[in-house]
Amino acid sequence: MLEYTGKDIYCDLVIPRKIDIRVVFESENVLAYHHTKPFWEHHVVVTPKQHIGSFLDLEFPSPIAKEILNTIKTIAADMQQKYGSCRILTNLGEYQDSKHLHFHIVHGTLLNQN
Amino acid sequence: MLEYTGKDIYCDLVIPRKIDIRVVFESENVLAYHHTKPFWEHHVVVTPKQHIGSFLDLEFPSPIAKEILNTIKTIAADMQQKYGSCRILTNLGEYQDSKHLHFHIVHGTLLNQN
Repeated sequence: MLEYTGKDIYCDLVIPRKIDIRVVFESENVLAYHHTKPFWEHHVVVTPKQHIGSFLDLEFPSPIAKEILNTIKTIAADMQQKYGSCRILTNLGEYQDSKHLHFHIVHGTLLNQN
Repeated sequence: MLEYTGKDIYCDLVIPRKIDIRVVFESENVLAYHHTKPFWEHHVVVTPKQHIGSFLDLEFPSPIAKEILNTIKTIAADMQQKYGSCRILTNLGEYQDSKHLHFHIVHGTLLNQN
């Protein structure tokens, strides 16, 4: 498989389903799925289907923020119940690999990355 | 200095200012300050002054969520502008050291912890 080298894997590949994903939750506006190259043992990504650049572009309150945050809450509650803990995080600037807002919900061992 | 061994350092020490903190932002409802024992080179904590157990206890939308999220946004924008990047994170369950909702906004080298 060719390596993706673009700047928005969500708009380019994930949301139009040009790659296979294992969906955790999906609505008209939000998609949550298991990371295709997980950094942690359990690694779910939550992203809006519309293009929003980063956390800094999200309005509080707004209908999309409400839906994203409540999706995160449901998935994090489930991960906490199953494994005892989880972490919710989002990156900005140089730490943000893909320039489309996404949150990571993670638990467990940090995996080796290729 | 004695080591704090309780379960809510925010209600017990930080919010009543029983320890010295360097405030980044403060309102009637929200406090943001430089972590007293930073894990990263730049490490700001954002917490509600009222007791909210964790991210799972936050209602979206709600006035307090709006204020917390907009405080995070302002501080993260500033950190990104100054240093080029930052990460926003919150922990749940066994990953959450103090059982009072708090977000970390961090940049830079992971520091050695005692």
